[in-house]
Amino acid sequence: MKYTIFGESHGPAIGVVLEGVPAGLELDLKAVQAELDRRAPGKDPTATARKESDTVHVLSGVFEGKTTGAPLCMVIQNSDQHSGDYGSIRYTPRPSHGDYAGFVASKGCLDYRGGGHFSGRLTAPLVAAGAVAKQALAQHGVGVWAHIANIDSIWDDAFISFTEEDDDCTQIAPPEDLEALPRKEFPVLNDAAGERMRAHILEVKAEGDSLGADIECAVVGLPAGLGAPDFGRNVEGIFSQYLFAVPAVKAVGFGAGFLFSQLRGSEANDPFEVRGGKVITKRNNAGGINGGITNGMPVLFTVTLRPTPSIALPQESVDLRTGEEVELEIKGRHDPCIAPRAVPVIEAAAALAACEVMGL
Amino acid sequence: MKYTIFGESHGPAIGVVLEGVPAGLELDLKAVQAELDRRAPGKDPTATARKESDTVHVLSGVFEGKTTGAPLCMVIQNSDQHSGDYGSIRYTPRPSHGDYAGFVASKGCLDYRGGGHFSGRLTAPLVAAGAVAKQALAQHGVGVWAHIANIDSIWDDAFISFTEEDDDCTQIAPPEDLEALPRKEFPVLNDAAGERMRAHILEVKAEGDSLGADIECAVVGLPAGLGAPDFGRNVEGIFSQYLFAVPAVKAVGFGAGFLFSQLRGSEANDPFEVRGGKVITKRNNAGGINGGITNGMPVLFTVTLRPTPSIALPQESVDLRTGEEVELEIKGRHDPCIAPRAVPVIEAAAALAACEVMGL
Amino acid sequence: MKYTIFGESHGPAIGVVLEGVPAGLELDLKAVQAELDRRAPGKDPTATARKESDTVHVLSGVFEGKTTGAPLCMVIQNSDQHSGDYGSIRYTPRPSHGDYAGFVASKGCLDYRGGGHFSGRLTAPLVAAGAVAKQALAQHGVGVWAHIANIDSIWDDAFISFTEEDDDCTQIAPPEDLEALPRKEFPVLNDAAGERMRAHILEVKAEGDSLGADIECAVVGLPAGLGAPDFGRNVEGIFSQYLFAVPAVKAVGFGAGFLFSQLRGSEANDPFEVRGGKVITKRNNAGGINGGITNGMPVLFTVTLRPTPSIALPQESVDLRTGEEVELEIKGRHDPCIAPRAVPVIEAAAALAACEVMGL
Amino acid sequence: MKYTIFGESHGPAIGVVLEGVPAGLELDLKAVQAELDRRAPGKDPTATARKESDTVHVLSGVFEGKTTGAPLCMVIQNSDQHSGDYGSIRYTPRPSHGDYAGFVASKGCLDYRGGGHFSGRLTAPLVAAGAVAKQALAQHGVGVWAHIANIDSIWDDAFISFTEEDDDCTQIAPPEDLEALPRKEFPVLNDAAGERMRAHILEVKAEGDSLGADIECAVVGLPAGLGAPDFGRNVEGIFSQYLFAVPAVKAVGFGAGFLFSQLRGSEANDPFEVRGGKVITKRNNAGGINGGITNGMPVLFTVTLRPTPSIALPQESVDLRTGEEVELEIKGRHDPCIAPRAVPVIEAAAALAACEVMGL
Repeated sequence: MKYTIFGESHGPAIGVVLEGVPAGLELDLKAVQAELDRRAPGKDPTATARKESDTVHVLSGVFEGKTTGAPLCMVIQNSDQHSGDYGSIRYTPRPSHGDYAGFVASKGCLDYRGGGHFSGRLTAPLVAAGAVAKQALAQHGVGVWAHIANIDSIWDDAFISFTEEDDDCTQIAPPEDLEALPRKEFPVLNDAAGERMRAHILEVKAEGDSLGADIECAVVGLPAGLGAPDFGRNVEGIFSQYLFAVPAVKAVGFGAGFLFSQLRGSEANDPFEVRGGKVITKRNNAGGINGGITNGMPVLFTVTLRPTPSIALPQESVDLRTGEEVELEIKGRHDPCIAPRAVPVIEAAAALAACEVMGL
Repeated sequence: MKYTIFGESHGPAIGVVLEGVPAGLELDLKAVQAELDRRAPGKDPTATARKESDTVHVLSGVFEGKTTGAPLCMVIQNSDQHSGDYGSIRYTPRPSHGDYAGFVASKGCLDYRGGGHFSGRLTAPLVAAGAVAKQALAQHGVGVWAHIANIDSIWDDAFISFTEEDDDCTQIAPPEDLEALPRKEFPVLNDAAGERMRAHILEVKAEGDSLGADIECAVVGLPAGLGAPDFGRNVEGIFSQYLFAVPAVKAVGFGAGFLFSQLRGSEANDPFEVRGGKVITKRNNAGGINGGITNGMPVLFTVTLRPTPSIALPQESVDLRTGEEVELEIKGRHDPCIAPRAVPVIEAAAALAACEVMGL
Repeated sequence: MKYTIFGESHGPAIGVVLEGVPAGLELDLKAVQAELDRRAPGKDPTATARKESDTVHVLSGVFEGKTTGAPLCMVIQNSDQHSGDYGSIRYTPRPSHGDYAGFVASKGCLDYRGGGHFSGRLTAPLVAAGAVAKQALAQHGVGVWAHIANIDSIWDDAFISFTEEDDDCTQIAPPEDLEALPRKEFPVLNDAAGERMRAHILEVKAEGDSLGADIECAVVGLPAGLGAPDFGRNVEGIFSQYLFAVPAVKAVGFGAGFLFSQLRGSEANDPFEVRGGKVITKRNNAGGINGGITNGMPVLFTVTLRPTPSIALPQESVDLRTGEEVELEIKGRHDPCIAPRAVPVIEAAAALAACEVMGL
Repeated sequence: MKYTIFGESHGPAIGVVLEGVPAGLELDLKAVQAELDRRAPGKDPTATARKESDTVHVLSGVFEGKTTGAPLCMVIQNSDQHSGDYGSIRYTPRPSHGDYAGFVASKGCLDYRGGGHFSGRLTAPLVAAGAVAKQALAQHGVGVWAHIANIDSIWDDAFISFTEEDDDCTQIAPPEDLEALPRKEFPVLNDAAGERMRAHILEVKAEGDSLGADIECAVVGLPAGLGAPDFGRNVEGIFSQYLFAVPAVKAVGFGAGFLFSQLRGSEANDPFEVRGGKVITKRNNAGGINGGITNGMPVLFTVTLRPTPSIALPQESVDLRTGEEVELEIKGRHDPCIAPRAVPVIEAAAALAACEVMGL
């Protein structure tokens, strides 16, 4: 299943084409729409107040409710948007947005309105594609779950504690906690921690600033033996390529991830045991992957999202026509922390990656 | 330039085929061999005492000293190895090695001797391929540099301090410091910090244990405007796929990387300025990449290596024939910390990734 | 430039996404539409009388008239179609259509209406994509031309006579003849031959039967030295993959093509000479490709189209539910010979292939 | 299973790396060697008298006689060759060889000795790779068979007569005739026709000239429903890319192939029937592929090989240093018709293509 996303924030429509969808899948379009609603803005006070009515339309690849295996195209119409807001940034790139790099790459022909093709809005078709992938995975008993793991050192409970040997690492959390996550506007395991994160986001928003976050994600149910150590086929490499294609993702770590540089081998290694006739590991520091191959444990990874680069505070930029340095103030309403809306996006990327790993 | 690595630790030979090498490149084979020597074991007391004489032989793709553009195959003969040492692991997978996942993936037909195709020894052909890539990049003014950034919270100086606005972020370190790195047996910028790392490694080795590390790498000289935000074409995604194909790499972060979850937008954003008629950023938290596209600043990233899974301490494993739990003691000599030898490997992966980004 | 076509004959819309379009291309949408009009049905008495108003809409990738380098999506709405006509074929596959193979591949979930995703109608988005490719090629002085070469042994003049040594093989036909081709409803070089072909088609149509054809195509202006002998990179292999993705194409030959089995080396070989300081070949039997690499001469190839499988005569089929053999009569209006409308389709496929070869 | 061939005619070795080989395949190395022996020169008076002792060595990917799934590298050492013979062609390209195109592509750095990487000798590793593919296919009941179909209008019997309705098109020839083919030095179904071909080749050889040929190939046992109509996934496109990567192949046609332009729909269409509870077609003009998807019938195709460009007759060339036209006489011993030795090469390419289609 290969996806191609198209569209611009202020163009007529955004969408995605999925190639290689398994035929005969009874597509639950309501579930696709529900995933889109999870990432829609305007629900939580920590998110932007912009309203976007993202209704997905299937143009192809589905017949009488089932996938045919032909390319599946889904489109979301853009509502009328006020492009006027963005005229000021045409030649004044916003720091840490794609504006300047995109200006150079497009030879000056950038659709700068609302970030154009670089807009976070383009994660909507990604979520739609991921929703299809999730349905394909579900037929094979594979589930994908994510939560906000950390915002500015306020930590949610982890899916798995990386150091306790007595955990049952075949499970990542009680099933009822997992199933509650997609229904939460602020998807964390520990709601008290979530409230502290929320309060902190609102404080920082009041200061005209923004925050980054860590999202932890688990893919549960992948059998052992998928992948290879080699370039292009190793599971970490496959996942990372999907994850870094999500805007704002700047780091990806599997299992203990960047914490491995603080661990000893005796702590980091995952001892084997046999449970229920099955070889498992007592810990899952490896995030379910050894030598680039799944080992049958949940595939676990954490992505780090950069803080929203659109902040209300004045910033230093450059006029690309004159070469003069200018002060830039970004207008409009922006998410002070993208994390709550990013959770379904990371799940979508993970689901598409898991389909590739599974050969779906 | 696409590479394919083949071989097993105890097979007749290991090697690599490079497709798409630019024609007409005057190949400096001594430089290729010098890179191999950088990763060779047995030089530093912190490394394994095993001796490997890795002499590279070019089988194809070079004529009268120049690349022809045809696939370039380089082979390294394996010397006689004592396969007997490894018999005990055939059905007793070493925790956190590829043994178990590989056993399942290969349907039980795993070349288990010395890790087989999963062996760190397979990074030798990767280094050889990277050395060719470096020579291709040098023709375009692109250089690749790496150092050990951190071992168990002992930090080397960073290529760039991520918070100081007064840095000149177009440079990553004084040129003489960079050029000294490849000649160092323990490649750090700050040799005093390096000595502390070394001492710590030897302590941990004496305890029969091992350590992970962070490696920081910079690709300097990539022009702005390369890449795209889209899956398969974004620069972070391209680099990450090469980096995760290196054994032991479990996390990859660009620029501030996983630290972004602790920063505010006002700290994380990289303000623009004009220097020497060129648009640059005052900071380089983005690691030279915005919206998946190079912005003309050095591409900076950090990879986290897991601790060497081969440790002298006893570990819990399973007999794959009987399903019984067994205690495993790994014999032989192993690197207590792979970091010094991994530095040229990470550079090689980065060089190959940079070639893809450059379209070489 | 990679294309993905989506849609079904009787779905809401058909379209194409083009990735990797060069940025800054001033897109001539009228020229895109003009190419679509070339393949539209209902113009010539030899074609189907169905009317299709194929108006292309650009959803993304173009801003202020120029390509941005982001994925370019073009959509053509399907007008209301009478799906009822096709109910009879749901479980009664039409011989030599994709119905049966598609039924199996889709696990029975085939959109059978009008051929669904297998419909020749899907060549409309291909033509739109090819029109963009042609504009990108024109910037590099590369042109693509095709004509009907042969229908049932009625031959048009050839672009180049393969045996005459005194031809100037750097040109494929007088420029005015080439430029007239896209304006002809029946695109042949020799209109008298064209009239004979037309008359023959009408005769065969009257018998309820159909005809195949050969289309000859030339890509003029490709520089020497592109491609490689190797799998995945050789020019014949690249072109053929694009050409066989066109429905009804069953054979592809380069230069003298399938006639090579009747030639001797002394006839087949293309002698070199120097003309205007440039190395050329006196003949172009190789179709501009030696060893998988362009030699600077026009790339010439011929594709063979199978006769339209939809014929009015009764045919033998099978009821896929009961396994009973049944007689099938295909209703509706169909092209008795697809050749005139296929000419712009083959040009489109060739233009996309040429872009890949050029690295555009 | 993806293959990469490396090496040059007069370099130290030639070889191939196969990625994605299914694990657990009991590799029959003798069978691999036997395939190499089929293409070895010097056996038949119609072939070159050169002796090549092509012994294949496995460097990786096989352990205890079974494939491990890791990249499988096979190498054939080059014996000492007289490079001196080829000095005269360094700057005097042989017509219709890859010399000139390769000279430009390599920026003048071509290994010109014996054709270098363009040499037909590079089909030896292709045959070795194909032999592995055949063994993987055999496990799934898929076989690959080829014969010389035509040399200069001397025709062998066809695998299937394309017009007779009473044929059993599920079989391509009596099994004993198929199994005899690989053991024949001149692989034809009808030995009398073969004798006429042989005599004709020797005549043409005596004149210092060469001949092309058609090779017909069948892949038997592929199930219905593999592939898709879309670019990159359609079965004809996949096969053609493998076939055109074989030197000398200039045309590829499926089923009736280039004859379709002489057929009417009523002749070309393959009526369905049910035989033994299975849907089959009474004819197999489609070559087992409809809409880019296998229909369960044998996949049939014919490739056209150009006449060997190395002929003894004097030819016109150009001195690339001076731009002067020169007469060229090619020395050495060459195959006057490559067909007998090309048969196992075409089978190898077809076997690799079939593995891709099967998802092996």
